Amino acid sequence: MSDQLIQHIRKNVNIQVGDEPAILSYFRPLHVGKKQNLLEAGQPCTAHYFVLKGCLRLFFLNEKGTEQTTQFAIENWWLTDYMAFQNQQRTDFTIQAVEQTDVLAIDFQRQEQLLAQFPQMERYFRLLYQRAYAASQLRTKYLYDFSREDLYLHFVKNFPEFTQRVPQYLLASFLGFTPEYLSEIRKKRS
Amino acid sequence: MSDQLIQHIRKNVNIQVGDEPAILSYFRPLHVGKKQNLLEAGQPCTAHYFVLKGCLRLFFLNEKGTEQTTQFAIENWWLTDYMAFQNQQRTDFTIQAVEQTDVLAIDFQRQEQLLAQFPQMERYFRLLYQRAYAASQLRTKYLYDFSREDLYLHFVKNFPEFTQRVPQYLLASFLGFTPEYLSEIRKKRS
Repeated sequence: MSDQLIQHIRKNVNIQVGDEPAILSYFRPLHVGKKQNLLEAGQPCTAHYFVLKGCLRLFFLNEKGTEQTTQFAIENWWLTDYMAFQNQQRTDFTIQAVEQTDVLAIDFQRQEQLLAQFPQMERYFRLLYQRAYAASQLRTKYLYDFSREDLYLHFVKNFPEFTQRVPQYLLASFLGFTPEYLSEIRKKRS
Repeated sequence: MSDQLIQHIRKNVNIQVGDEPAILSYFRPLHVGKKQNLLEAGQPCTAHYFVLKGCLRLFFLNEKGTEQTTQFAIENWWLTDYMAFQNQQRTDFTIQAVEQTDVLAIDFQRQEQLLAQFPQMERYFRLLYQRAYAASQLRTKYLYDFSREDLYLHFVKNFPEFTQRVPQYLLASFLGFTPEYLSEIRKKRS
């Protein structure tokens, strides 16, 4: 399974043959059962997670006390609360497994050491963050621009794998509406 | 003025004394007058901008045909449409100067060459994008969580320099409400 991260790195940057074990030694594998938490609101956010298999979601408790999902991560996606991670602070988010999930975790100091030992990993993370930020900038546009129904249609079209995997009530939460509203849209379009 | 970028780079990464002219040679200075566009919707997005002096905003035309501002950039901030920039595509956004503005611009291919010649710049941009993505992840949380009034109060508290510099109708657009609603909030709080 660890080959998966190496393959993902190789898709983006050149690493020397033979460096794989040293790179992987910075990570620790973790398994989280369905609905178990990898990280809980109030805890220090110490790690950055790479999904090998399964699905994670990032949520916070909103003012009404309900769980508001703002991100998902499936195979080959990275996830954490980046502000809390980079500042080594407590997080307001919870990261929970939507399915049985295997991840590779790297702690903040270990990631810094990895970058110092393998400068090519600076390029890898630069590309990762660049794409993540680009996607996030577009998402902000959609949040301002799209009606709720358009948000749903856009999501279904662009992320069909999520629409099938993620329970409807989580998808509704992510899109910012109630499960009832989601089933209304789905009925209308079927 | 070019020292300003070098200082910003040095705050983040170590660059060799003597490398400054070679690094700066990748950039071209541009001046944009107030309300002039640096980049227009429909054009290829070829450059990444570093603000030396002044203020830029990024906006798109929403479905109602009005300008929806989604980002500002002042001194020492970087701005572009990152998705269009990294894919070398046309943009749906316009970047306009809110005040008389001086920027340093770097084209996509030149930025790639800069990164190849000075690997420390990979680290610089990795840190930039990491922070930008972290801020964006939090912003998404606020967009889901905060009432309009709370968004305004949060913004005023965290970015007082913008509240003073940016015309109220642009601030209202950025926060996603009408200028009338903004002046109501301000009256209420004064």
